[in-house]
Formats: sequence, structure tokens, C-alpha cells
Amino acid sequence: GLSELKKRGHGSRSWIKIDQDGSSKILELDKSSIMRHCSLPARDLRLLDPLFIYPSTILGRENAIVVSLEQIRCIITADEVILMNSLDGRVIQYESELCKRLRMNKDHNDDLPFEFRALELALELTCMSLDAQVKELELEIYPILDELASSINTLNLERVRRLKGHLLALTQRVQKVRDEIEHLMDDDDDMAEMYLTEKKQRLEAYSSDQYAQTEFSEGVRSGSKSEPVSPVGSLSGTHRGLQRAFSSIVSSSRHENMLSSSSSGENIDQLEMLLEAYFVVIDNTLSKLSSLKEYIDDTEDLINIKLGNVQNQLIQFELLLTAATFVATIFAVVTGIFGMNFETSVFDYPSTFHWVLLVTGFFCVGLYLCFLFYFRHKKVFPL
Amino acid sequence: GLSELKKRGHGSRSWIKIDQDGSSKILELDKSSIMRHCSLPARDLRLLDPLFIYPSTILGRENAIVVSLEQIRCIITADEVILMNSLDGRVIQYESELCKRLRMNKDHNDDLPFEFRALELALELTCMSLDAQVKELELEIYPILDELASSINTLNLERVRRLKGHLLALTQRVQKVRDEIEHLMDDDDDMAEMYLTEKKQRLEAYSSDQYAQTEFSEGVRSGSKSEPVSPVGSLSGTHRGLQRAFSSIVSSSRHENMLSSSSSGENIDQLEMLLEAYFVVIDNTLSKLSSLKEYIDDTEDLINIKLGNVQNQLIQFELLLTAATFVATIFAVVTGIFGMNFETSVFDYPSTFHWVLLVTGFFCVGLYLCFLFYFRHKKVFPL
Amino acid sequence: GLSELKKRGHGSRSWIKIDQDGSSKILELDKSSIMRHCSLPARDLRLLDPLFIYPSTILGRENAIVVSLEQIRCIITADEVILMNSLDGRVIQYESELCKRLRMNKDHNDDLPFEFRALELALELTCMSLDAQVKELELEIYPILDELASSINTLNLERVRRLKGHLLALTQRVQKVRDEIEHLMDDDDDMAEMYLTEKKQRLEAYSSDQYAQTEFSEGVRSGSKSEPVSPVGSLSGTHRGLQRAFSSIVSSSRHENMLSSSSSGENIDQLEMLLEAYFVVIDNTLSKLSSLKEYIDDTEDLINIKLGNVQNQLIQFELLLTAATFVATIFAVVTGIFGMNFETSVFDYPSTFHWVLLVTGFFCVGLYLCFLFYFRHKKVFPL
Amino acid sequence: GLSELKKRGHGSRSWIKIDQDGSSKILELDKSSIMRHCSLPARDLRLLDPLFIYPSTILGRENAIVVSLEQIRCIITADEVILMNSLDGRVIQYESELCKRLRMNKDHNDDLPFEFRALELALELTCMSLDAQVKELELEIYPILDELASSINTLNLERVRRLKGHLLALTQRVQKVRDEIEHLMDDDDDMAEMYLTEKKQRLEAYSSDQYAQTEFSEGVRSGSKSEPVSPVGSLSGTHRGLQRAFSSIVSSSRHENMLSSSSSGENIDQLEMLLEAYFVVIDNTLSKLSSLKEYIDDTEDLINIKLGNVQNQLIQFELLLTAATFVATIFAVVTGIFGMNFETSVFDYPSTFHWVLLVTGFFCVGLYLCFLFYFRHKKVFPL
Amino acid sequence: GLSELKKRGHGSRSWIKIDQDGSSKILELDKSSIMRHCSLPARDLRLLDPLFIYPSTILGRENAIVVSLEQIRCIITADEVILMNSLDGRVIQYESELCKRLRMNKDHNDDLPFEFRALELALELTCMSLDAQVKELELEIYPILDELASSINTLNLERVRRLKGHLLALTQRVQKVRDEIEHLMDDDDDMAEMYLTEKKQRLEAYSSDQYAQTEFSEGVRSGSKSEPVSPVGSLSGTHRGLQRAFSSIVSSSRHENMLSSSSSGENIDQLEMLLEAYFVVIDNTLSKLSSLKEYIDDTEDLINIKLGNVQNQLIQFELLLTAATFVATIFAVVTGIFGMNFETSVFDYPSTFHWVLLVTGFFCVGLYLCFLFYFRHKKVFPL
Repeated sequence: GLSELKKRGHGSRSWIKIDQDGSSKILELDKSSIMRHCSLPARDLRLLDPLFIYPSTILGRENAIVVSLEQIRCIITADEVILMNSLDGRVIQYESELCKRLRMNKDHNDDLPFEFRALELALELTCMSLDAQVKELELEIYPILDELASSINTLNLERVRRLKGHLLALTQRVQKVRDEIEHLMDDDDDMAEMYLTEKKQRLEAYSSDQYAQTEFSEGVRSGSKSEPVSPVGSLSGTHRGLQRAFSSIVSSSRHENMLSSSSSGENIDQLEMLLEAYFVVIDNTLSKLSSLKEYIDDTEDLINIKLGNVQNQLIQFELLLTAATFVATIFAVVTGIFGMNFETSVFDYPSTFHWVLLVTGFFCVGLYLCFLFYFRHKKVFPL
Repeated sequence: GLSELKKRGHGSRSWIKIDQDGSSKILELDKSSIMRHCSLPARDLRLLDPLFIYPSTILGRENAIVVSLEQIRCIITADEVILMNSLDGRVIQYESELCKRLRMNKDHNDDLPFEFRALELALELTCMSLDAQVKELELEIYPILDELASSINTLNLERVRRLKGHLLALTQRVQKVRDEIEHLMDDDDDMAEMYLTEKKQRLEAYSSDQYAQTEFSEGVRSGSKSEPVSPVGSLSGTHRGLQRAFSSIVSSSRHENMLSSSSSGENIDQLEMLLEAYFVVIDNTLSKLSSLKEYIDDTEDLINIKLGNVQNQLIQFELLLTAATFVATIFAVVTGIFGMNFETSVFDYPSTFHWVLLVTGFFCVGLYLCFLFYFRHKKVFPL
Repeated sequence: GLSELKKRGHGSRSWIKIDQDGSSKILELDKSSIMRHCSLPARDLRLLDPLFIYPSTILGRENAIVVSLEQIRCIITADEVILMNSLDGRVIQYESELCKRLRMNKDHNDDLPFEFRALELALELTCMSLDAQVKELELEIYPILDELASSINTLNLERVRRLKGHLLALTQRVQKVRDEIEHLMDDDDDMAEMYLTEKKQRLEAYSSDQYAQTEFSEGVRSGSKSEPVSPVGSLSGTHRGLQRAFSSIVSSSRHENMLSSSSSGENIDQLEMLLEAYFVVIDNTLSKLSSLKEYIDDTEDLINIKLGNVQNQLIQFELLLTAATFVATIFAVVTGIFGMNFETSVFDYPSTFHWVLLVTGFFCVGLYLCFLFYFRHKKVFPL
Repeated sequence: GLSELKKRGHGSRSWIKIDQDGSSKILELDKSSIMRHCSLPARDLRLLDPLFIYPSTILGRENAIVVSLEQIRCIITADEVILMNSLDGRVIQYESELCKRLRMNKDHNDDLPFEFRALELALELTCMSLDAQVKELELEIYPILDELASSINTLNLERVRRLKGHLLALTQRVQKVRDEIEHLMDDDDDMAEMYLTEKKQRLEAYSSDQYAQTEFSEGVRSGSKSEPVSPVGSLSGTHRGLQRAFSSIVSSSRHENMLSSSSSGENIDQLEMLLEAYFVVIDNTLSKLSSLKEYIDDTEDLINIKLGNVQNQLIQFELLLTAATFVATIFAVVTGIFGMNFETSVFDYPSTFHWVLLVTGFFCVGLYLCFLFYFRHKKVFPL
Repeated sequence: GLSELKKRGHGSRSWIKIDQDGSSKILELDKSSIMRHCSLPARDLRLLDPLFIYPSTILGRENAIVVSLEQIRCIITADEVILMNSLDGRVIQYESELCKRLRMNKDHNDDLPFEFRALELALELTCMSLDAQVKELELEIYPILDELASSINTLNLERVRRLKGHLLALTQRVQKVRDEIEHLMDDDDDMAEMYLTEKKQRLEAYSSDQYAQTEFSEGVRSGSKSEPVSPVGSLSGTHRGLQRAFSSIVSSSRHENMLSSSSSGENIDQLEMLLEAYFVVIDNTLSKLSSLKEYIDDTEDLINIKLGNVQNQLIQFELLLTAATFVATIFAVVTGIFGMNFETSVFDYPSTFHWVLLVTGFFCVGLYLCFLFYFRHKKVFPL
């Protein structure tokens, strides 16, 4: 499986590249070039692969945010969005809406950096799409349940089972998106990691300051490739090392040095507020789904009690009829007795016929009434 | 859906504005003017929108607290409350009570800032309204359950199902309010963010100090709109940047610099104590609801066992009657035998008639007693 | 509801005041005087109000610990315990035991401050009272369940349902006490807040040091009542502000300044150990209750399986009897056939009578045996 | 209950004292002397009391670790283990094994301090004993369940119920041990608190340094016994105060001062690794128990479905027989009709006898086939 | 059990040693030599022992990472992987794949240190193997459930029960791997502990710096073996002590000293990203399993409702037939009456025969129709 898997990953695939100024173009890119371009390891790209159906994920990496929200799978860098091309409506909507928004900048009064505007749209479309699906499911399930509660039939049971499967799958998807947003909100470091534009700008500022020094140390370091960790005290580093150092500083700045990095604190707030708003939306969607699940469970409980209750009523009637049959059989026995071919004196008096019928009749009615009183006394009957 | 959604958000709506001195007036405001006035992004305002029914939320933003507690939807700033107008009783009660409280300041011995007095009233009314609804539900459910436990009928089952739906919806609403309060209490930063009055006053103090410098840097910055992050080391900032910097300092002051911001530590305590008290109330409401749910579940378990038990009793009687019918049929067979038109010697002795009746009668009674003993031996009968 | 509520809160009520030297007296206090005396807001006092039945709560406030553990509702300050008077046995026991302990100080080798000795007794009595109730419930439930497991009757089912209600209510109460202790143990700040004696002593020490300065700033501040937050940099503060500043310092001392406040670290340990010990006790009580719940659930599962099993046995007997009745009816049909008034040649040979009986008899017995074999073959019978 | 409880605690009890060099002796100690010796409060000792059956607990105190793991109840100090004497096999095994290990030091390559070697053995014996009990339970439960799944009988149901009780109790005990280990691992301060040997050595080192100063302040402090908290700034302290100060420093050293207390960081790792290894073992035991619980639940679900299914099959046969009985009764009615004593012309033709039998016979068989077709059409029959 | 256990641990076992340059060889090692080589305590090695089947674990130790992921059990040090030899396919695949990857270094663009490349492969193979097993189980379960939903038979019930057992076991294994990854990701210290290569390099760098000093203090320390903790202030330490000190510094560097250890912050990110990617994969596998579980539960719910429903239908038919039998018995009674041997005037009119049949016939049909109407009125019939 492993080697075969590797091969599949190397074919090139169609992607849509959207720039900061809102222009998009379709490209054919193979996996390794994306990996190089966004400095992502193979294992991160694999999460976007439509061959493996992974649930929604948002990963903040060094130079990119890897977003896989339902059908929308993209890699957001500080300069561009690389969106996996597909015929799905949401992908097309994402592309057109993002381009539109990037082009007319004015109607947004919160000036979010590029990467968050791309992320927000992905969240917005995903939350709305999921909410719409939940509403659709609600419209389908409620009438069937009400129908089922009044009369049970196999067809509806099957439909409820099928819809429960849909509900379960949808709940898992919504839950996954919700968890992903919550997880991000809980981790200040992960959020700080996502400030791609800021990290890039800092790095550029730093690079120009340190240009001379870097040039020098570059030469030194080039000979020590096999040594992954630079010795303590040496402040020289490659472009990449600096980048990482910055992201570390950004993520720890809250605890360290408030004055010099107030803008980072501000940014974490910006992203946190953005996520918070969509968290409320998706959490609401999730609670609708859990309501639906509870409603189905309650209906099933009711159906079970109802079935049990109807069954008891049926058995009560059955019992009454069996008692009646028994009484009738008693009468039949009496008639059988007098139908035997013995010649006894009882047949001599014609009036006996009436007496026999009367006495047996009254006896049978009396016996039946006794049964009724006994059943009522035993409280098995609510009649 | 997206573009249509946008349009709906632009119509103006009726709001009630309540000032710090307790005077209120009704205004027509459109979304964008509120967004500008309170510097809130569109996505935050959407959470208040009655078209989307979002659950209860309390969001601390830069200049405002966005409160959506059940019917009470408002934006609290340091100077005023902007309350969404509606005919709902709680909205009217909120307005009148808040105005009354703001006017006569003396009966409150804890001097809370304006924003927390507005928030407290919203919490107070919401908690009480929810608790009242829970009490109402309890009064309705308990008698039905007790009735159901003694005798099951379809009408009551339907009512229980309906009430379970209410219970579920109410639980979700209460849970949401409780979670929101708990979430706030757990996050010191979010609580610090809510000190609008304090933030405003600090900002004003700072602004007057830095007036000269700000004026200068304002000029510099105006030309660098596209650069969202100011370079490291530059302390110049707009009014807005300062505001943010302050909120960062406030939120991190506990860890950093205790002496200079002791009042902030004090305030977090104030808000924490306020939230704590309402948390106890709403948590109590929630545990009433979970009691109710458990009570319903226990009653249903009991009903199921009772149904099963009654059913067994019914089948036991059925079994006894079937046995009796079988025995009677045996007697009928005997009478049938002697009613056949064969001419055999048995009919010659008239006393045979009595013997046949006696022997068959005793046999049948004996057979029935055997059944009873067998059933008792097999322990299927508790008779 | 709101205004009426307010009124109810203003009546005076009977309280017991217990001093540090173990002397107690009964006082009539109204709400507002307590609020002033302990500097508690109205909302905290409301949690003690017996009109609203709130669950157990322990709140650490500036100058007081508000304790509401089951029947024991009191406010503990650094100097005295104000206990809500009631006829409940536990309140009386609390008063007498606390006075006794305070009077003879020697048998306690851990020198706890006054507030923790009062708190410990409240915890001790509550934990023991709850544990005793759980034991009582256990003694009542186990025999009923064992009885029910062997034979189901409606009376016992009703008693189990009633006891399940008790169990549920008791579990919630125990859970609440447990959660409250756990919550306190998890929050170092809340625990530090509770060192009333220490806070008071520090404040007094500080006050005497800063007497001159405070006197001066007091005059300045008196004119700025409406300004709730003192400007940054101003270190002057009222008595109250200082108090708060201290509690902040105490709570943050672990992270800040270890040398100068080692005694605070010591104290947090003292309270933590105290709470830990009672946590073990109450957690044990809670796990007994959950055992009980599980035992009831297991018994109900067993009862359901047993009911189902007995029902199947009943239906098996029923089936056997129905088969027998059918066979007998077949015999009756045969006798009926030969009882018809047709004159055919079959009646001419008297021996036919015996043959008919023999043949039909064997046929019927054979038919019945076929049924038995068929049922056994179909494996519906474990006979 | 309270005063009686106190009395019970004062009787002396048999303890085993094990020294660092592996020699053990049996002592009679009363509660108060242990309390003094280990400086433990009464409430901690109560947790060891076999009269109250508390679940497993590990408490790190100032000078001692209080260990109550199943039957092994002991107090571990830096110099000795005071083990509660009992006839239980595990206590005896603990004593002999600990002595053996202490005597031959060489086969342990991780040089743990004395207190952790004692603690490790308690954990090791407890984990193994619990795991052995789980295995025993597994061996007992699985065959019964498999037997029950194939045929239900009351005896096995009762045994399953009894074993479920055992399983529940065992799960709670294992869970408690697991939670206790997890809780310790999560709290760095608690772990640091347990370094008794280290704390003692530091104290001794410090004591000798500060001897002169302590001697002096001792005199000062002796007169201020009633003042529990020393004034801020005073660094003088009793032996005990120092001890506490050290434990505070140890527990906070990770955040404060890495260089001077690197050995403490090392130690926390040592204990963490020790706990981690036993956590894996006990967690594995717990997951076996939860597997067992799930297996029982699954078997019960299966039994319920099977019971329902068998019941349906029984009722199907019942239905078929009732239909047959009905058809036979129809035939009997026909024979009854021709057995009536009316003299009509139908009896004149002898061949009618055969026609009546044939027609009625075919009619009855036809009727029965109709029933079968109807039942199959209604899909209630899988025949 | 304990002593026997010890013995079993001492036999030597076959291991595969894989070097950094990708060459592997098979070795026979006994437990104690591994313990010495990797400086692991006995209790950690016991977790790898195949005699005790412990669930998946990843433990970061001083010089080694102990990995037990399903069949792959190995110890990873900075220089080599010691893999437990076994005939299991995954072990063989791990060895060959790791050697291959180590040999051709170029196709990995993220330069992970040796220990993480070994760890990643173990995670990758384990996640894929588990996912494959889940897929297999899905393929087996879904058809059986669909079959069961349409018709219940005992064979399928047994198969579902067996598959539920598999599902349960697999869920626990997947859950364990997932928890282990999550646990690692949550604990920054544990992740830092795993940087074996880095720790080793630092130690070497430090060692050469401190060579002179160490040499000196070595002599001093050699005489104080029994003193496990060096006195405060003494910075001298053995090789081992330094190693630990470094791991402490690495783990706390985030909070302390950002500039000098930026490379450590970088590394934690590297490992975190690696774990994050596999967490997504294994979490996805787990949610498939929980879907499967829910699907089974839903199907069982459906089956129960269906069984109840079919049962009610059966009882309805039964009831109809019993009613019919009763009616037929009534007719039989009438024929019996006129079959009695009394000589009454009714037999004198031959037309009575027809009247009796007609009247009784209509009466019986009428009676039956009454039953039908009554049942429909009582709503027990959906006919």
C-alpha cells in the first residue's frame, strides 16, 4: 500500500491560484512543486488529497495555512491562495466571491490581512453550506417522525434509519469544523503562527538590517549542513532559521515583551474575534443537529412505549375473547352431553330442554362476568 | 444565498439607546452606522440579527460588549446601551429597569461601572426568565408523569413527547447561557477586555500625554495605509492602535506589572464575582432541568418494566384460559364420541351415562390441576 | 417578579454570631446591614436566601467567605462567623461544635487561622451528613432491588422509582459539594483570596506604614468620587483599594516574588491540604452513589431480560396448548362427522366405532408429536 | 456521630516500621503520636483508617507521603515507611519485598531516593494485584456470557448480575488508582512536594548556614505564638517555616530560577517517569474492564433482540395454529349442522354425506391456504 | 507472581538494530544490557514486553524514545533504532522502509533529525495499518447490518455480536494511539524531551567547554555517592547530571530565554507539526469507527422497533382469528343445542332448520362485524 500510495501523490493536479489583487488563474501543479513553493512537508499536503477523505482541518504552518473545510481545499500563503480545482459549486463560489472581495476593498471596515480574508471566506461558505444542509435535513426528518409517531410502518422506519445515517455523517462533519475552530481559539501560539503577512514583513525588515552579518555567516554555515542545530550562543542563521525564530518570538511575545510587539497582541485579538464569530454560527448548527438527534431518540422512545401499550391492549382483547371462547366451549360441552346417544330419564320431560338452555345460559354469562370482575380486581385491565 | 443575505443586513431597524444618566430614546439605525459607531465588524452584528436565531452570546470587543441573551439583544459601550427594539416583554422590562437603576444610584453599594450594570441587568432578567420557564415546565410535567406511571394512555404519551421537546429546547438555551458565563469566567483576558470605561479613561489619559507625538506620527502613517503592521521599534500609532495596545496591557497586567495596574486586578475580580453569582443561579436552573430529564427517563424505564410485567400477567391468564379451553374441548370430544351414530353395546346400560360424565369430569379437573402444578413447578407463575 | 423579589430581601432575619473566642449570640439582622458589615453585594447574599433553594456554594470574597453547604449557610469573616439561624439539627450542631473547638484550642496540632477552622467544620459536618444519608439510602434500596430481581410487583416498582428520585436529588447535592471543593482546589487565586486573617494583618501593617501618605491622598481623592479608576501612575488609594491590591499581590505572589511572601505559599498549601482531605471523603460518597445508580440500572436490565424470557416461556406453553386444542378439535370434528344424521353404510358395522376411535386417536397423538418435533427442529423450544 | 468518631481514632494500632536499611519492626502506635511524628493533621490520618473504607489515595504532605493503595496503607517519610499492619497477603508481601530491595541495592540501575522506592513498590503491587483480579473476572465472565447468548436461563442471569456488581466495584477501584496517578502527573507542584529526601537535605544545609541567625530570631518569635503570619519583610522563621519555604521554592523553581535548582527539575522527571510507567499499566487494566463492560452490554443487547425474535417466531406458530383451529371449528360447525335433529330432505340422499365431507374439506383446506397467502402477502411471515 | 515475572524478563531476545546510515543487523540482547545501553529503567522496558500486552505508548526518556505502536516495538536513540524482532509483516516493513529512507535522503524536503524520521515511520505504518483494518471491518459489517435490518436471523445476530467485539477492540487500539499523540502534542515539555540529537549535541558542546572544570569536580564528587542531590550553589555535576540539566533547560526555554535557544522553539514546532498531521489521520480513523458503532446501534434500535411492530401485527391477526373462532364456536353451540336428544316441538317444522341456519349465520357475521368495528374504534387496528 505504501509505495503505491507514494506514486499516486506524484501526478500533477489542477489548481486555482488567486492573487492579492483578486486575479485568478488555473494552473497544473504537481505535489512536489507545491511542497517546495509553500515549504510544506508531504504529510501536510496529503491531508488535502481528495483520494483520502479526511475531515475538515485548518493547519497553521511556517509559510502557509493549510485549509481543508469540506469541499474547499486550499493553501493560503501571505501572497496568494492556491485552491484545489473541482467542479463543486462551493469551490467555484469561493473563487468568484474571493476575487470580488479582494477587488473592492472598501466595504470591509475591519482591515484584515490577506490570509485572514481568504480564511474568513472559507469559514463563511463552509458554515453556511453546513447550516443549509442541516435545515434541509430538518425539513425532511420532522414530518416523517410525526407520521411515525402516529402510525408505524416499515417504509418510514427505513427512511428514518437512512436519515439517521445522514444526520450522523453531517454531525461528524459539523463537529469537526467546530472542533477545529475551537482548537485554534484555545491555542494562542497556533493563532500567532498564522500571521503570515506580519511574519513576512518582519522577516524582510530584519533581513535588511542583518544583511551584512547574514552574508558573512552564510559562508560559514554552508560547510556545516549535517549539523542541524547551531551551537548555543551563535546568533547567525539562514533565512529559514530566522523565520522560525520570529514565529517563536511572535508566539511568546505575550508573556515576554509587551511593549515591542503590541501589534502581535492586537492581531491575535483580530483572529480570535474572527474565529469566535464563526464559532457561534457553527456551534448553533451543531446544537440544531443534537436537537434533531434527541428528537429522533425521544420519538423512538415514545414509539417503543406505544408499541408496548398497544400490544398490551391487543392481548387484553385476546384474553377477553379467549375467555368468551372458553365459556362457549362449556356451553358446547353441555349440548354435547345431552346429544349423547344414551337413553336416560332426563330426556323424558320435554321442559328439561328449556331448563337446560336457561341454566347453562345463565351459568355461562355468570362465569364470564366472574372473569371480568377477576381481571378488574387483578388490575390488569384499565377497561 | 450569500448576496441575498448581504442585502437583508442593510435595512435600517429600530433600536433603543439608553444613556449613562438613564434617559432612553428610540432610533432608526442601519447596520453600517452601528458598525461604524461601535467599531464592530459585520460578522459580530450578524449574531444579533433576529433573522438568524443564534443562541445566547456575550462577546467582548474593543469598544463594545455584544450581548445576545435570549430576547435581550444589545450592544453595550462605555457610554450607552443600544438595545434592539422589540415588543417582547423582557426588552421593555430591561429598558425601564435599567433607566430606573441608572437614575437612582444610591441603593447599589458596589460601584460597578456603567457597562457592567447594563450587563448585570441583562444577566439578571435572563436568568430569572429562564428559571421561571423551568418552574412552569416542572409544574406541567410532574403531574402528567405521575398520571402516566399509574395508567398509560396515548394522549399523555403525546403530551410527554411534546413537553420533552420543550425541555430539550429550554435545556439548550439554559446550557448556552451557562456555558457563555463559564467561558467568560475562565478567560481572564476576555474579562479584562470588557472594562470599557477603564479602557476609555486610560486612553484619554494617554492621549493627552502623547498628543504632540501622535499628531506628528499621524502625518507619517497616513501615507502607509497598505502596511498593516508597523515596523518593530516604532512606537507611533493611531488612536485605534493605542486603544488596542492598552487592552493588551490590561489583559496581561496580571502577569507583568502588578504595582502600576492594581486597579485592573481589582476590576477583573469585580466582574468575576458578578459572573460567579449569576453562574450559581443559572447552574441551579440547569440542574433542575437535568433532574427533570432524569425523572422523565426514570418514569419511562418504569413504564417499560410495568408494561412488560402487565403483559406477562395477561399472557399468564391467557395461558390459564387456553388450558381450560383445551380441557373443555377434551370433554366435548368425549361427548362427541358418545354422540356418534354407531350402535354399540355401551349405550345399552343407562348408568353408563352417569359414569361417562363422572369419569370425564374428574379426568378434566385432574388434567387442569396437573397443568397448574406444572406451571407452578416451572416457576412461570407467581400465582 | 423583580420588584417583589427585592422587597422580600429587606426583611430582617435571625442570625447567630460566633466570635473568635467561641462565644455565640443570636442577632436580628437585615440584609443591608450584613451587606455593609461584610462588604458583600446583594447578589452574593441572595445565594444564602432560603427562599431560593440554591445548591451548595463556597465563594471567596474580599472580606468574607460566603458558605452555603446544605443546611449550613454562613458568612465567615476574619473575626466572626455569621450563621443563618434555623431549627435544623446541623445548624445547631455546627454552632455548638464550633464554639467548643474554638474554646479548647489545644487538641488541634495544625494551627489553622480562624476562617479555615470555621470552614473546615462546615465541610466536615456536611460531608458526614451526606455520607450518612447515602448509607441510609443504600440500606433501603439494596433489599428492594434484590426482592424485585426475584419477583416483580407494582408496589416495589413504585418504591424503586421513588428511591431513584431520592438518589438523583442526593447525587446532585453531593456532586455540587464535590464540584465546589474541586473548583476551589483548581484555582490558586481563589484559595489565596480566602486568607482573610492574613489579608487583614497585612493591610493593618501596611496601613500603619502608609498612614501619613494615605491621609494626604485621601484628601485629594475625596473630590473625584465619580472617577472609578485612578489614573495610571498614581499610587494613592483608599483603604479599600489597598485591600484589593493586597489580595492581588497575594494571589500572584507565586509567580512573582517568592522570597517576600513565602508565608502565602505556605498558606495556599494549608488550605489545599484541608480541601484535599474533604475532597477524598465527598468523592468517596459520590462514587457510592454512582455504584448505587449502576446497581439499579443493572437490576433493571436484568428484570427486562427476565421479563422477556418468562414471556417467551409463557408463549411456548401457550403454543403447546393451542396445538393440543387444535388436535382435540380435529378429534371433535371426526366425532361430529359420525354424529351427522346421514344414513350411510359406515354405521352398519359396530366394530367401526372402535376403529374410528383408535385411528383418530393415533392420528391425533401422531399429529401432536409432529408439532413437537417441528418446534424442536425450528429451535424455538428449549424444552 | 462526631464525638464517637473522635474516640475511635484514639485507640492505638499495630504498625510496621521499615527503615532505610531494610530492617522492619512491629510497633504499637496511637494516632496522636503518628500525627506528631510525621506532622500530619488528624484529617489526613483518617483517610488511612480501615474503619472508613476510602478509595485509593496518594497525598504529598510536608514531611510525608500518605499512601492508601487498596490494602496497602502506609506513611512514607524521608527515613522510614510506617505501614499499617494487617493479615492481608499484600501487606506482608509489601513488607518482605521492600526489605529485600532495600538490602540489595545493586540490581536497580535508576538510583531513586528512598521515598520513591517505597512508593514504586506500593504502586507495583497494587497494579499487579488489580490486574490479576481483572484477569480472574474475565475468565469467569466470558464463558457465562457465551452460554447465556445461546440459551437464557435464570441462574446464569443471576450470576451475570452478581459479576456485573463485581465488575463495577473493581472498575471503581482501578479508576481511582488511575485517577490518582494521573492527577499526580498533571500537577508539577504536587510531585515536587514529594521529594522528601531532597527537601530534608536542603533544609539541613540551610539550617547549618543560618544557624546563628535562626538562634537569634527564635528568641524573638517565641513570644508571638498567636500571630500566625510573620510581618512582610521579616525573613526570620522557625524550622518549620523554612521547610515550607523550601517546598515552595522547589515547586516554583521551574518558572523562576533554573540554574540553582537544576536537580529539582531532574527529580520531577524521575517521579514523572515512574508514575508514567505505572499509569500505562493501570490504564491498560482499566481498558480491559471497560471492554468487559461493553462485551456484557453487547451480549445483553443481543439477548434482547434474540428474545424478541424468538417471541415473534412463537407468535407466528401460534397464529398458524389458531388459524388451523378456526378452520377445524368451521368443519365442526358443519358437522354440527348435519347433526341437528331436524328432519329435512338433505338426509334422504346417502351420497350427500360424502359430498358434504368433500366440499367442507376442500373449503377448509382452501380457507387455510388463503390465510397462508394473506400472511405472506402482509409480510409478517418469513416462512 | 512477582519473582517469577522478574525471571521471565532476563532471557535474551532477538532485536534489530538500525543505524543512522540505514544499515540493519539482528542482535541477541538481554534486558539488562538494553537497560544499560539506553539508560532506561526496567519498568519502561517492561512496557515493550510482548508477554504483557500493553496498548500503544510513546514515552520520551532521557536518552531514548520508547515506542510501542501496535506490533512495532522499538527504542529510538539519537544514533540508532533498536527494534524488537518479530515475524509480523509490519515489523519487516518498518525495517526495510526505514533503511530505504535513511539511505536516500534527498526526497524529504523537511530535514527532520534521525529520531523523528524513525518515529514518523512508526506512526505512518501504524496509522495506515489501523485505517486498513477499519476499512476491512466496514466492508464486513455494512452488508450484514443491511441484511439484518430486512430479516432477522440468529446466525447474523451472532456475526454482528462477533464483529461488535472486533469493533470494540479496534476502537480501543485506535483510541489509544490517538490519545498518545494528543497527549504528546499537549505537553511541550514531553516534546522537547524527545529532541535526542539536539540534546546530545548540546551536551557534547558543553562538555568540551567545561572539560577542565568537570575533571576537577569529578574528583570531589566521587567521594559523595550517597548524597543524591548536590548542595545548592554547587554547579559541578557529572556527565549525567548535565544531561538532565540540559533537558530541563530545553523544556523551559520557551518561558525563560528566547534568544539563546531559538532553535529549540523551532524544533518543538517541527515535532508538533509531524504529530498534528498523523493526529488528523488517526482521528479520522477513529471517527469512522464511531460512525460504525452508531450505525450498528441505529440498526439495533430499528430492529427492536421492527420486532415490536411485527409482533403487534401478529397479535392483531391472532386477535382476529380468535374472534372468528369464538364466533364459530357460538355457531357450534347452536348446532349442539339442536343436536340434543330432547323431543321438543321445534323439530316438528322442517323449515325451522333453514331459519335456524339463517338466523344463526347472520347473527355470527353480525357479531364478527361488531368486533371489527369495536377494534377500529379502540384504535388498536391500523387495518
